[in-house]
Amino acid sequence: MGGVIDEERASRMLLLRACEPGDTRVVDEVAVRGAVEVAESILRGSSLLRGVATMRSRLPDGVQDVHAAVEGDIQAAEVCGARLVIPGDAQWPTQLDDLGSRAPLGLWVRGEANLRLLLVRSVSIVGARSATSYGEMLARSVASALADRGWLVVSGGAFGIDAAAHRGALDAGGASACVLAGGVDNAYPRSHEPLLSRMVGSGALISEAAPGAAALRQRFLLRNRLIAALTRGTVVVEAASRSGSRTTAGEASSLLRPVMAFPGPVTSAMSAGCHDLLRDQEAILVSNADDVEAMLTRFDEDGSDVERVGDSLPDVSGMPESTPSLRGAMALGDQTREGRVLAVLSPRRATPLQRLSARTGMPPTEVLVAVGLLESAGLAHRSGDGWRSTSG
Amino acid sequence: MGGVIDEERASRMLLLRACEPGDTRVVDEVAVRGAVEVAESILRGSSLLRGVATMRSRLPDGVQDVHAAVEGDIQAAEVCGARLVIPGDAQWPTQLDDLGSRAPLGLWVRGEANLRLLLVRSVSIVGARSATSYGEMLARSVASALADRGWLVVSGGAFGIDAAAHRGALDAGGASACVLAGGVDNAYPRSHEPLLSRMVGSGALISEAAPGAAALRQRFLLRNRLIAALTRGTVVVEAASRSGSRTTAGEASSLLRPVMAFPGPVTSAMSAGCHDLLRDQEAILVSNADDVEAMLTRFDEDGSDVERVGDSLPDVSGMPESTPSLRGAMALGDQTREGRVLAVLSPRRATPLQRLSARTGMPPTEVLVAVGLLESAGLAHRSGDGWRSTSG
Repeated sequence: MGGVIDEERASRMLLLRACEPGDTRVVDEVAVRGAVEVAESILRGSSLLRGVATMRSRLPDGVQDVHAAVEGDIQAAEVCGARLVIPGDAQWPTQLDDLGSRAPLGLWVRGEANLRLLLVRSVSIVGARSATSYGEMLARSVASALADRGWLVVSGGAFGIDAAAHRGALDAGGASACVLAGGVDNAYPRSHEPLLSRMVGSGALISEAAPGAAALRQRFLLRNRLIAALTRGTVVVEAASRSGSRTTAGEASSLLRPVMAFPGPVTSAMSAGCHDLLRDQEAILVSNADDVEAMLTRFDEDGSDVERVGDSLPDVSGMPESTPSLRGAMALGDQTREGRVLAVLSPRRATPLQRLSARTGMPPTEVLVAVGLLESAGLAHRSGDGWRSTSG
Repeated sequence: MGGVIDEERASRMLLLRACEPGDTRVVDEVAVRGAVEVAESILRGSSLLRGVATMRSRLPDGVQDVHAAVEGDIQAAEVCGARLVIPGDAQWPTQLDDLGSRAPLGLWVRGEANLRLLLVRSVSIVGARSATSYGEMLARSVASALADRGWLVVSGGAFGIDAAAHRGALDAGGASACVLAGGVDNAYPRSHEPLLSRMVGSGALISEAAPGAAALRQRFLLRNRLIAALTRGTVVVEAASRSGSRTTAGEASSLLRPVMAFPGPVTSAMSAGCHDLLRDQEAILVSNADDVEAMLTRFDEDGSDVERVGDSLPDVSGMPESTPSLRGAMALGDQTREGRVLAVLSPRRATPLQRLSARTGMPPTEVLVAVGLLESAGLAHRSGDGWRSTSG
């Protein structure tokens, strides 16, 4: 973090330390009164939020100043090379807005890459801790193939499928990111410390828990919503019938991200959860990396002559700070008007206003607002009688 | 056949010998002019149907009389103990009407059981000839479990999955039926002669091809429509990516019968066809016999307090000539008004007219017509202020 941090950032640090992840009351309060005021009211014990005493108890004793209260977090972050990314930052992954009141107030991140760009082409691969060799082989090979095609492989760092997915991506020379239930400086499980360290280079360690925070049981399920929300789709490789992977799948599904599951032998208890998802039509069956990529990019196609995103994306491996287009990220769940416009823009050919309007189903006035925002973000530019997306 | 057969039956025998299965022109012509007239016009060469010369060439030379023309078939049937079942017979499986112009003109049947009753609780289990041991184990155990619960297991008698399904049903002491592409006296493959013979006891051998007819290549795909149409649902156990099982599944699906597929390891080429069906949402994933039975009986439930069909069906194993209710068969695809009424009738409790009307969504006048037909067929009877289904 180095230098001085502003009041907003310090306040969100404080909130991340004091409050439980996914506390919708806090997020709603911040939306109304702002992070600075909410943080101060918790620090002073004057907040009307329920559980304020517990929140206060998680902050240093006797401290009355927000900056002083987060001094420990700042120092811990400096030690491990972490930074806090908050809404409004250029690096903030805006797809988290889909979580509404369940969005994190900020994310602690280790890794040099631009977090938002890193997640443009991202997929989560999750599954059972007590995976079979079939599942681990599958997770590893699919993660390798996807990483090789420039996809960031996101998972939870656990034993079994999670670790196999991370390793597959890294072994292919690709990037992987881990969303932790505890602090980004608190490897869990402990024996995965070397694996987690490998991700810092080209990927990231991500957590909404304050540095040093323990990976408490209830935080794992809450962590899963971030895995689902950060990525363009979730793949379940192996899962027992009642498993945490099902919550990740459920989160992804409710966020309109594609949910995929690998089948396995019906005689394997470790495939039963995948089969449940498939039978209940909560997931689409995938058999290989091609299937996964087809599902992840299905929103990119508009059925016409505009090329697919994959075609216009150069290889970004080894270029963590740059990616040619946010089209993918913004097309995520089609949640933004900008995303819808960007999804139909071509980098090679200008598209006129009327056509953009017809293809997005948005009135021309809305298209103009969206395209203006894309221009100011450097993601699109005027060209002849229309607009192109910016590439390279 | 024993005694004298009537003109209609002899004419349909002739047509089954002369025409290719599934020839919609012939079926349409029969619907307009009747089987007797069409058979005679083919015999005399006066028919305007295309290919009439080929049809005529399949009949004995020089014969001008329908009865004489089918004398050979009648004799062959007597030798193997086959009979012809035609539309209008009490034993005709009316669910074949769903095939419209592709319905068979009749079915040659070996086996003592009443064909229609036999098929009330029927399921087809099909799959690859070059199955793996995983697939064969699965087909066999699922068929055993279903047969044990009174389901007739229908398949095509081929090597691999088909044979495993037949064997599983028979080994459990249940009934199995084989729909053949050639004549019912022409075991194909030849080495399955003993397996096919075992089915004659409590099940059936079924074919629309005339006795002695060869199992020609094109007849296998046409045969698959009968497997799909005769049964309440189709289960694909293992299949390669482009396989005949897919046509059976497609037929079942277009007839609104549930299509189910078993998953397997993604590394197995013999599960690829099942995975294709599941990925394309042309089949529902099933993991065991419970899943299959739930899908087969889903139409039986009306979401209220009427017991499920399975609950009111006594064990019919070893009772090939009787089954308590045609409810299952008639509920097939909900294609008949009688079926809809029967599906909501209880054998234990009378249901009054208004309630039958409300539950079926049919006007009371239609319910009365339907319930009258059910009464005359012995499937329902008046009881107090309403009707019950007849059981036992």
